[in-house]
Amino acid sequence: MSTEENALSIVALGGANEIGKNMYVIQYADDIVVIDCGSKFPDESLLGIDVIVPEITYLLENRNKVRALIITHGHEDHIGGIPYILKQLNMPIYATRLTLGLIEVKLREHNLLGQTHLKTITPESLLRLGKFKVSFFRTNHSIPDCLGIAFHTPEGTVVHTGDFKFDLTPVNEHYPDIHKMAAIGQKGVLALLSESTNAERPGFTPSERLVGEHIEEAFAKATQKIFISTFASNVHRLQQIVDAARKVNRKLALLGRSMVNVVDVSSELGYLQLPDDMLIDPADVHRFPPHEIVVLCTGSQGEPMAALSRLAASSHRQVEVLRGDTVILAATPIPGNERNVARIVDNLYELGANVIYGSGSVTGMHVSGHASQDELKLMLTLMKPKYFIPIHGEYRMLSQHRSLAESVGVDFDDIFIVKNGDVVDISDGVARQTRKIPTGNTLVDGLGIGDVGNVVLRDRKHMSEDGILIVVITLSRTENKIISGPDTISRGFVYVRESEGLLEEVNRIATASTIKLLEEKANQWSQYKQSIKDEVGKFLWMKTKRRPMILPIIIQI
Amino acid sequence: MSTEENALSIVALGGANEIGKNMYVIQYADDIVVIDCGSKFPDESLLGIDVIVPEITYLLENRNKVRALIITHGHEDHIGGIPYILKQLNMPIYATRLTLGLIEVKLREHNLLGQTHLKTITPESLLRLGKFKVSFFRTNHSIPDCLGIAFHTPEGTVVHTGDFKFDLTPVNEHYPDIHKMAAIGQKGVLALLSESTNAERPGFTPSERLVGEHIEEAFAKATQKIFISTFASNVHRLQQIVDAARKVNRKLALLGRSMVNVVDVSSELGYLQLPDDMLIDPADVHRFPPHEIVVLCTGSQGEPMAALSRLAASSHRQVEVLRGDTVILAATPIPGNERNVARIVDNLYELGANVIYGSGSVTGMHVSGHASQDELKLMLTLMKPKYFIPIHGEYRMLSQHRSLAESVGVDFDDIFIVKNGDVVDISDGVARQTRKIPTGNTLVDGLGIGDVGNVVLRDRKHMSEDGILIVVITLSRTENKIISGPDTISRGFVYVRESEGLLEEVNRIATASTIKLLEEKANQWSQYKQSIKDEVGKFLWMKTKRRPMILPIIIQI
Repeated sequence: MSTEENALSIVALGGANEIGKNMYVIQYADDIVVIDCGSKFPDESLLGIDVIVPEITYLLENRNKVRALIITHGHEDHIGGIPYILKQLNMPIYATRLTLGLIEVKLREHNLLGQTHLKTITPESLLRLGKFKVSFFRTNHSIPDCLGIAFHTPEGTVVHTGDFKFDLTPVNEHYPDIHKMAAIGQKGVLALLSESTNAERPGFTPSERLVGEHIEEAFAKATQKIFISTFASNVHRLQQIVDAARKVNRKLALLGRSMVNVVDVSSELGYLQLPDDMLIDPADVHRFPPHEIVVLCTGSQGEPMAALSRLAASSHRQVEVLRGDTVILAATPIPGNERNVARIVDNLYELGANVIYGSGSVTGMHVSGHASQDELKLMLTLMKPKYFIPIHGEYRMLSQHRSLAESVGVDFDDIFIVKNGDVVDISDGVARQTRKIPTGNTLVDGLGIGDVGNVVLRDRKHMSEDGILIVVITLSRTENKIISGPDTISRGFVYVRESEGLLEEVNRIATASTIKLLEEKANQWSQYKQSIKDEVGKFLWMKTKRRPMILPIIIQI
Repeated sequence: MSTEENALSIVALGGANEIGKNMYVIQYADDIVVIDCGSKFPDESLLGIDVIVPEITYLLENRNKVRALIITHGHEDHIGGIPYILKQLNMPIYATRLTLGLIEVKLREHNLLGQTHLKTITPESLLRLGKFKVSFFRTNHSIPDCLGIAFHTPEGTVVHTGDFKFDLTPVNEHYPDIHKMAAIGQKGVLALLSESTNAERPGFTPSERLVGEHIEEAFAKATQKIFISTFASNVHRLQQIVDAARKVNRKLALLGRSMVNVVDVSSELGYLQLPDDMLIDPADVHRFPPHEIVVLCTGSQGEPMAALSRLAASSHRQVEVLRGDTVILAATPIPGNERNVARIVDNLYELGANVIYGSGSVTGMHVSGHASQDELKLMLTLMKPKYFIPIHGEYRMLSQHRSLAESVGVDFDDIFIVKNGDVVDISDGVARQTRKIPTGNTLVDGLGIGDVGNVVLRDRKHMSEDGILIVVITLSRTENKIISGPDTISRGFVYVRESEGLLEEVNRIATASTIKLLEEKANQWSQYKQSIKDEVGKFLWMKTKRRPMILPIIIQI
């Protein structure tokens, strides 16, 4: 990527102009360090795709230059791509203890544990990776043990904030390293990469402690069982739920695989303080009086297979929501999830539960983990960068973040809004954005990484809307005539019993089309197929205003 | 539906426990009146479906009792089903002038105009429909000419509010008939059906005038072209946009078929005051200086084919958004549309536009057309009903509306939360909810009304996720052997060039399976097909963790 011997280059392989699958690359001469390795969920146009990870062609072409993968924190959009990327490129991974603990769970599931060097770092670590000197600073976010990173190079210092907020009253008393940030800024920052998730939101994001107060209040009022659902990875919130449960002398049952995983890892590593006798098996919930129970579960985003969905549908094997129970959704729906969450709330109301739901800013049951506008300005002010690259956001968020940077004194021309693959080169103190490297989405479907492309997706979409119609005709090699068929089979188009007349007409049209071409002695199968497609397609559009995929199969005996 | 001679019965065929496709039925002895006839857009599980309308089996079975269809106002969820329902059951339609004007546009598109009696009513109309005496009262909503309805029967009075808010400073100075509502309540209301859309929202919905003030401010500040997008049917807002444009001496161009339709109908009928020389052809926009132009367009919900989407993608044939233009989204995204709207905002930012977007409560560019909690309580207080049936909302909204009714003195036991098809019978002053009539969703796909059922949808979903694999084998009738094939064709599964080995293996497995059965002299084609499905399915799951639909086709020559 670096065209010049001493040039510094910065590029996003994921996370610029999108939320999700974060992956940033910083290169100085022949040394490359990768920051984060996230995954992203597909939108509704990517039918059947399980997950999306960054395309790493550039890294594969320069594999001998890659020194390390540094992970800023343990959220899916920062670690979710690791199993898929490691299968293509092995790199030593540097992360804090909790983050590594969560990565290990993933690697174990993919049978990859032991194949990669995992190196524990702390905010105090100092690394030398090729020509990079790397130091860290602690930040706050909706998961513990988050890092910002400072890369010290001969060209100057580049800072990557990771995801952050300034929580000045953090639940675990791990305060943000504001003095260290100030010192880095004081020494001079050449370029700042700062996250933009909440760049549209005015003000200062409230402290996680606010949520704790509301949880305590709700727990004090509840008379029957309490169910509370939140993001499993928000260990601070889990701690506050544990603390609130203890205050009202309730036991705690966990539902959902990721909740069990996170509680295991974080309590084992000392990030979650869980009294010994508090946890009970979900199968034992019915043995306790309702007022002694808190059920902590996954599914706050309405995920159809998660615990809360099953509870709302009364289909959980072990635990039931009953009239008078309290159900708290301690999370705001992420855009796109509103309908699924609303359906769950409807079902819970039908069960007679007292439901606390809605935007966290109304219920007090959720605060964001991301810096709002005033905190973003604070970070920019602390770092005083020469160049600024807003990252981790969609275009409008990056644009808003640019305006914030301008308002605290960064020059418009020194701000680079990049897309994935756009390279910012800095040499002799001057930054330029002139070239691109190839990147994009790698789609994961089942075991296939990158084998589902546009043709397959287009076909899936076509069949999902209007179904498929298969027309099979057998021709004689010697006699120039149809010896079997046409047989027409439809799937996802119309239900056969209701439309026999329609399919008979299709057979008639296909026969006529084929006989005509046989008489003309057409000798290309593609002609026969195209003719059936055209004629049958025209007929069906006229009759039904639908366009199923038409697949003629011609067999010659 | 009425089991007793003098019983009054109320049932929702659509709109109870859902937002969309409203249709309520009120019956007294042998007289039936239908209220509203809406449509609803399918959710993502109904692949390929264009629109959903109520199932009207009950009305078809009692067609000789149906006296009228009364429409409360001209929104899609109240009139969108009319063309599809009229094809099944012809009924005279009663509605106000603007509502009828919008219905006529629909009937014209479906070639149904002239086949139905359309009868104009006003808030002052008094109808006699069988044993019903029917009167009306004016309400406010996000479209002009809305009605609430009072049905006076020997059993008592039933009130249906339609959609409403209390806008005490309405744009067209058509104030809500509060005195008439009070008089109806004073005489005694047996049962109230009131809409619940905003039952979750505290307070009082702001007046539409508030939006006008914000539009004026934004227009005054704009220096280049102005684009503004809103719901076409919100004629009040269109009027305020027209007024604001006139104040700054700008011409108006319309983009989008529904915008053109509504402006045509509402200005022709006198609901929209449009200066003669204001409207210009979109093709002429480029002839005017940018500061003399307002473009009013559809697509505020991010609909991919609507004008705003095309403008944001720079793919509109006639008009371009350029750096420095102002684009106003005068609508809050409806849940489910957030991502599409966000994508448009991103694109507009990339074009360099100044974009005013986000929740209407923040931008001031949108207010709801539905009553918030204090207005719902005001309606309940005015009507003082004995029985209350919250309608027009999902379960949680109906539940919240029940709580509001209790808070103003309605007895819990006198409130009926119903689902579509649940009948509330009232006789001798006593209401009971004990029976159901059949109802449900009628799915419209192209020209087919109700011909796409669960099997077809299940197949579409299956193919959309993992595609289809077709295995064709030709057998000899006489020789008990394979004479052609297997030929395997896949669509939406894997791209063939990348997976030839996989498909060869499928052919090998299908051959082995078939030969085995031939040797066993199996004589049911279903056995051959099932065996191929099982063996190939198992193999593909192991190799790919995907489950394409497997469709074996066996031809015997």
